Amino acid sequence: MKEKRFIYFFNEGDSKNKKLLGGKGANLCEMTQIGLPVPPGFVITTEACKAYLGQKKKGLAAELVEQVRGAMEELEKRTGKGFGRREDCLLVSVRSGSAVSMPGMMDTILNLGLTDQTAAGLVDQTGDERFVYDLYRRLIQLFGTVCVGISHEKFNGIFEKAKKKFYAKADVDLDAGALREITKQFLQVYEQETGSPFPQDPYEQLELAVEAVLRSWMGKRAVDYRKQFGITADIADGTAVNVCTMVFGNRGAESATGVAFTRDPATGENRFFGEYLINAQGEDVVAGIRTPKPIKTLRREMPEVYCELENLRHTLEQHYREVQDLEFTVEQGKLHVLQTRDAKMNASAFIKTSIDMFNEGLISEREALLRVKPEMLAQVLHRQIDPQSTNAVLAQGLPASPGAASGKVVFDADRAESKGKLGEKVILVREETKPEDIHGFFAAQGILTSRGGKTSHAAVVARSMGKACVSGCEAIEIDHASREARVGGVAFKEGDVITIDGTTGNVYAGEVPMIEPEFVDDMLVLLEWADDISELRVRANADTPEQAARALKFGAVGIGLCRTERMFNQPDRLPIVREMILADTTQERQAALDRLLPFQRNDLKEIFHIMDGRPVAVRLLDPPIHEFLPSADEIQREINHLKELQRTVEGLADLPDTLLLLDPKLYAKYADTLESVAKNLEKVKGKNLAEQMIEAKETVLKKVRNLAETNPMLGHRGVRLGITYPEIYAMQIRAILEAAAEHITAGGDIVPEIMIPQVCTLAELQWVHRYVEQIHKEVEKQYGMTVRYKFGTMIEVVRACMRAGRIAGLAEFISFGTNDLTQATFSFSREDAENKFLPLYEDRGILQHNPFEVLDIKGVGRLMRITIEWARKTRPEMSVGICGEHGGHPDAIMFCHHIGMSYVSCSSPRVPIARLAAAHAKLNEQEYSI
Amino acid sequence: MKEKRFIYFFNEGDSKNKKLLGGKGANLCEMTQIGLPVPPGFVITTEACKAYLGQKKKGLAAELVEQVRGAMEELEKRTGKGFGRREDCLLVSVRSGSAVSMPGMMDTILNLGLTDQTAAGLVDQTGDERFVYDLYRRLIQLFGTVCVGISHEKFNGIFEKAKKKFYAKADVDLDAGALREITKQFLQVYEQETGSPFPQDPYEQLELAVEAVLRSWMGKRAVDYRKQFGITADIADGTAVNVCTMVFGNRGAESATGVAFTRDPATGENRFFGEYLINAQGEDVVAGIRTPKPIKTLRREMPEVYCELENLRHTLEQHYREVQDLEFTVEQGKLHVLQTRDAKMNASAFIKTSIDMFNEGLISEREALLRVKPEMLAQVLHRQIDPQSTNAVLAQGLPASPGAASGKVVFDADRAESKGKLGEKVILVREETKPEDIHGFFAAQGILTSRGGKTSHAAVVARSMGKACVSGCEAIEIDHASREARVGGVAFKEGDVITIDGTTGNVYAGEVPMIEPEFVDDMLVLLEWADDISELRVRANADTPEQAARALKFGAVGIGLCRTERMFNQPDRLPIVREMILADTTQERQAALDRLLPFQRNDLKEIFHIMDGRPVAVRLLDPPIHEFLPSADEIQREINHLKELQRTVEGLADLPDTLLLLDPKLYAKYADTLESVAKNLEKVKGKNLAEQMIEAKETVLKKVRNLAETNPMLGHRGVRLGITYPEIYAMQIRAILEAAAEHITAGGDIVPEIMIPQVCTLAELQWVHRYVEQIHKEVEKQYGMTVRYKFGTMIEVVRACMRAGRIAGLAEFISFGTNDLTQATFSFSREDAENKFLPLYEDRGILQHNPFEVLDIKGVGRLMRITIEWARKTRPEMSVGICGEHGGHPDAIMFCHHIGMSYVSCSSPRVPIARLAAAHAKLNEQEYSI
Repeated sequence: MKEKRFIYFFNEGDSKNKKLLGGKGANLCEMTQIGLPVPPGFVITTEACKAYLGQKKKGLAAELVEQVRGAMEELEKRTGKGFGRREDCLLVSVRSGSAVSMPGMMDTILNLGLTDQTAAGLVDQTGDERFVYDLYRRLIQLFGTVCVGISHEKFNGIFEKAKKKFYAKADVDLDAGALREITKQFLQVYEQETGSPFPQDPYEQLELAVEAVLRSWMGKRAVDYRKQFGITADIADGTAVNVCTMVFGNRGAESATGVAFTRDPATGENRFFGEYLINAQGEDVVAGIRTPKPIKTLRREMPEVYCELENLRHTLEQHYREVQDLEFTVEQGKLHVLQTRDAKMNASAFIKTSIDMFNEGLISEREALLRVKPEMLAQVLHRQIDPQSTNAVLAQGLPASPGAASGKVVFDADRAESKGKLGEKVILVREETKPEDIHGFFAAQGILTSRGGKTSHAAVVARSMGKACVSGCEAIEIDHASREARVGGVAFKEGDVITIDGTTGNVYAGEVPMIEPEFVDDMLVLLEWADDISELRVRANADTPEQAARALKFGAVGIGLCRTERMFNQPDRLPIVREMILADTTQERQAALDRLLPFQRNDLKEIFHIMDGRPVAVRLLDPPIHEFLPSADEIQREINHLKELQRTVEGLADLPDTLLLLDPKLYAKYADTLESVAKNLEKVKGKNLAEQMIEAKETVLKKVRNLAETNPMLGHRGVRLGITYPEIYAMQIRAILEAAAEHITAGGDIVPEIMIPQVCTLAELQWVHRYVEQIHKEVEKQYGMTVRYKFGTMIEVVRACMRAGRIAGLAEFISFGTNDLTQATFSFSREDAENKFLPLYEDRGILQHNPFEVLDIKGVGRLMRITIEWARKTRPEMSVGICGEHGGHPDAIMFCHHIGMSYVSCSSPRVPIARLAAAHAKLNEQEYSI
Repeated sequence: MKEKRFIYFFNEGDSKNKKLLGGKGANLCEMTQIGLPVPPGFVITTEACKAYLGQKKKGLAAELVEQVRGAMEELEKRTGKGFGRREDCLLVSVRSGSAVSMPGMMDTILNLGLTDQTAAGLVDQTGDERFVYDLYRRLIQLFGTVCVGISHEKFNGIFEKAKKKFYAKADVDLDAGALREITKQFLQVYEQETGSPFPQDPYEQLELAVEAVLRSWMGKRAVDYRKQFGITADIADGTAVNVCTMVFGNRGAESATGVAFTRDPATGENRFFGEYLINAQGEDVVAGIRTPKPIKTLRREMPEVYCELENLRHTLEQHYREVQDLEFTVEQGKLHVLQTRDAKMNASAFIKTSIDMFNEGLISEREALLRVKPEMLAQVLHRQIDPQSTNAVLAQGLPASPGAASGKVVFDADRAESKGKLGEKVILVREETKPEDIHGFFAAQGILTSRGGKTSHAAVVARSMGKACVSGCEAIEIDHASREARVGGVAFKEGDVITIDGTTGNVYAGEVPMIEPEFVDDMLVLLEWADDISELRVRANADTPEQAARALKFGAVGIGLCRTERMFNQPDRLPIVREMILADTTQERQAALDRLLPFQRNDLKEIFHIMDGRPVAVRLLDPPIHEFLPSADEIQREINHLKELQRTVEGLADLPDTLLLLDPKLYAKYADTLESVAKNLEKVKGKNLAEQMIEAKETVLKKVRNLAETNPMLGHRGVRLGITYPEIYAMQIRAILEAAAEHITAGGDIVPEIMIPQVCTLAELQWVHRYVEQIHKEVEKQYGMTVRYKFGTMIEVVRACMRAGRIAGLAEFISFGTNDLTQATFSFSREDAENKFLPLYEDRGILQHNPFEVLDIKGVGRLMRITIEWARKTRPEMSVGICGEHGGHPDAIMFCHHIGMSYVSCSSPRVPIARLAAAHAKLNEQEYSI
């Protein structure tokens, strides 16, 4: 059997094959092959990773070791250096890199190849002892933590102590002697912690480092990250290992290391953006250990290098046709590029760059649309601090990720997670964040750090999540022991509320008023492009005139779901609704309904006015009517309280007698008063108010108990109510048609869609349709005009799906209520399932997602697909929509487009997302498969 | 336009066209055309009925009247008599008759054409005044009640008074004078009640009578009957009217009228069976007014007529190839046959005649099977009085419809219905029953009458319904005023319990022990034929060894559903089950499960032993575990009670002090005792038992509240429990496999089927399958043997239907749980729906049936059909069953056969029904369509 090839040099790897080489490796190959200044190196493929994870024994397989040794020999040839050789020693970095960028998730080791011997040789060669021991102490720390699991604290403690000892403010203030001492102590720590000395064989270092990288693929935080972002094996399967010749940004004042974006990742502006540190190495910039300088100062400090960088920037963008995020190192005036990748940016930056790059002729309209992920728009729609607010700014940091957020202060990620799970809003406050804090990011509303720049870990991750972040807010001092932070003299305990504004970098005490986001012009342009392309229309769910106005603002073409019961719940109506429900006779019920009619009609008229000429689907009463009543427990509590009062009253009546027995003297003193009180109490007994109230409440209690259901989800609701209490639906139908008539009379245009919920058989629809026809006739007569309407049904009961062909004979439109349909399809009650077993199901991968959050395409979706097929056999032009919560989710929208739906309807803020997703669905329809 | 023909004479009607002529009319035509002695007459078609019911005005249409007059003129010609003529007057009967026999449902009028004038003429002609006034008073009563709605009581009161006045025991004891006087009084009643005299124009009589018959099609009891028995318009649409020349059984001692069956309808024996009355007319026999004589005495009384009747009997059976139920009249020695129809018989008679007629070569095996309706077998399986019982027989009547029944005495049908609706078992006790009592039959367990024979209304209807009936039990006197009955000196009030035995005619006081029915040999033969023909197998649902034994007895080929939780509910296990549920740790839970294991294993071992070699599907725990705990309300009540006790105890402790205050003397007297009680109470306070119990109960209450669900039907149950508490399913799987191993060790043979409930996704099945594989390995090792099993799932969640193709990759069998599947498909919670809106839905025809009783073929069935299609695409030989309640219902079985199911599983007593239904399904498969 021919040996499998696990290694490719940067100049030979196929840069299209990211699955094999990882994203980082593929880009290193690409850059090398187009002639950019990448130091020589090679990639160990993801197949090596899979082979390693599949093997049973520890350590790298002999086959791989052999290939690595061969590659190192080749590298020695290419660089003219020797790995482990005292003279001209070769040092390398070892970095992970999978097919999908997972920032900071995997491990990196620098300066590999340094040993006591090569260090000494390097000192001889460079004459720079400080430089060499700076490298060596970094290697020991990185290797010790990453490969053998020594805690960072062990090393940091020594380092900080040394800084104090040598009066050094920053790392750069430490001289050669100090670093040599630190290195010595690090070597001791290593030996203490592991029981064996730091490896002096560079190949031992290399093999352990490669193994550590491979192993880290299955590390907890990598696994969590992949799970959180749905990165499955078909997307990325294993990490590659990049072994690259070291270049040094810490060889003095002519050296530097930095990170840059080809455009501003926060705004999308077409300007070079980045940060660097003079005389620093590797992770110093992104780890936020020192606060770096903005890239523009490099122009002054190293004009030639800056010019080279500008060229690099343009080459990369022209080549990748995407904004790039690159790492570079300047070693004694020579520029090297160590990495490039597609930039993570916030949504407005994505939108702006899409429009700009299209205008620059760099990308097509299709590409411009597709590179903005619909979910990203949620960020643009984030809330902002109200400019009118007068709250004092407590401190200012860097505006690292836009948007504003309020929440309780927490000082670590675990706490953020546990509080977040309880539904509390928290702001994660840290000196700096690390990859292991990732779960805290998920849970937090926003992130505030006292150190690090706009490319620090905290900033990058927060931006990718669209969470507000203020970084480098140096005014904050955190005292972990007392769980307290001080900002300009103000102390915050864990649990105190603060507000951060990631757009300005401001930090406020307490909660600050915020405003809804306004659309940026670029987004409007993008969404117009989207609407031109998409076939699926986007409506909004809106129950009130205010919501209807909002729906229009967000670009909805109509209302897909107007829930009439929401109009019942307002304080001026609820008492009438309760009267209606508690009525003993049809007459009493009718009287209450007569009073509700004007409310419902006026609300609808306003909505029709706002939506003039656009479709509005009005759903008749859906929830079980007991939802409008207080709960039995609540009423019982009130009754008990009244009875308590009553007993007290009765006790008072007996007071004179009791007192007479116990203390005749006292009695004598108060006798008159007491007797008079008692007499009065006696008098009111007959018409005791409490008693009357108890009686009334007991009547209600009885009704509530009668209305109680074992499984309300499957109970007496929707059209079932409409049939048992026809007068309720009759009132609502009249309200809709009268509102339409009045709107038309006022010169408007409307064709309301009357939508019936919970239908399971055609006969129910026929039954309601008869009311509609009757009332329609009456309304047309009453207003002396033609009033058009459409008649249709929700599809949220499985049987309606099975009978879709028949139902389509009468229904002019159908709209899937995927919330209820999901419950019925899974036989899951949402509240029960989410409290009892759904979390476990997700944890164990029994269900990939909570089907109430992510449309279950395989089950519910299949049902929807056959329903549409059957319905369109009867009525080929049938309008089909979806108005469950899923209607605003890009994956669901993709599926809805695929099965030929006419529109989706979602909450207003998700309308832009849905519009873009609808365009994506059209653009990607060829590639789509379930 | 050519006039529509509404009338056919008996000698010209197409006897195959029952829809047009009605059953009775078609048979009259048939008999006339094969030469049997039917008096001349004609049929007014069901189309006339439809035309009448469709018209808006009252009265018959001119077109129909004209055709009737023409037909009467023709009849006058054929009989040589004159309608309304004083000499040789023509009298006719008018009887209804629709396509489906609806016994006693429609109205009959005899002697039509009698007026004061024709009566006088007939007296002259016959010289028999008694005969003529007997006819006339009958006509007036029938006409008065049927055509103009006078109550029977009005006429009966007069008649009974006259009987007393003339010392007549029976009708026949009344002489001409008495009958003339009765006739006169009847004419007066008629005029008093209607305001106009009895019609003296025979055509007016005829037209009103025809109209009354046509109208009666939409009468309440006819509509109810059709609804009850599912007789829709495509089966019978309107009634025909038969107008037939009168012949008279009441022309003296040479005349008689009778009813006969070509075989004994109670036993099926091939012997002529019937009853007759000498000198009687029309309904006298079936109405049970006089107790008639058995047919065999006719052989002695009228040997020639008897011989003719015997010939008639054979001719009819040979011709119709079915047992016939015929009416005949002998007028002065001449035999006339007035009607024949397929006999209504009880199930054992149907079974016996099927076997006999096949053996006689009269019918084929296919016909023999098809003429026994599966539901009929339910009758054979009725309970019988335990022969060992020593209860004294209180009275004896005629064994009119076999089977025994106990229940509370009720004296009218309305009461029977209202009590029956409350779930009470009642016996309807009447002098005689009438068609208007039909709703009482539906509600009653059995019927007891004091008058009437085995062909009385009560007997015929009870037999057709398979209800126990004792008729003609003359020892019973009913006093309606006091709502009491006396039987041989014993008084029964309404509500007292009696038992009747329709097999022997015995009546008992109180409830008598009964035994399960044994199969008759004929049924076994029939079911063997059925099994040979059918493709669908029949299993039983059985949860215990006793039930398994029963399943075998009823001929089940295996167990389709063995519910393991039923084994949990027994009193020796429930406390352990509760411990298991209330356990705080997995260890505690495991300990309880370890104690449950032997119970479960032993039960299963016994079941496997009984079912040796046959398939047994064992379903793992299905219901939510809170079902095994007392309800929160119950616990709260107990806690409240304990607290009450506690307060009382505390009050006692204060007693001495209180008494001292109130009555120092009394205190002094009891001081020592009281103080001692108080001290003791004080002592126990610390370790108050009540307090401890309250604490324990409050812990349980908290658990119960935690386990409570908003929609338990859609909650934490079935495989969801199996995944959240794997130790429960592990115990059950172990119990199954160990029981199998032990059964095989003991020389038996079993391949248990492990069935997982509530599955909604393949991953759940995979999860449980891993346990099964693991435990299977352990059990095989432990017992040192091979243990085979099958692994499969219930299909009761809609999503499982959608994913059937995938599920079939792992599941070796599937079984539809149509109870839950129906709930999920309709989004109906059974208990809520049946209490709230289902009755209304059925009333209004929105649903034709309660889908929990009758499988909803259009919705649930469609889902089942596509599920099977998808599943068999993956696993073509997949075994598919049904184990919901629907599995035992013939219509559902027909459908299950149609969609290619492998077996149905039902409760044991329904197994024979299902076996026959499965054969029917096969035999009728060509004609079947949904």
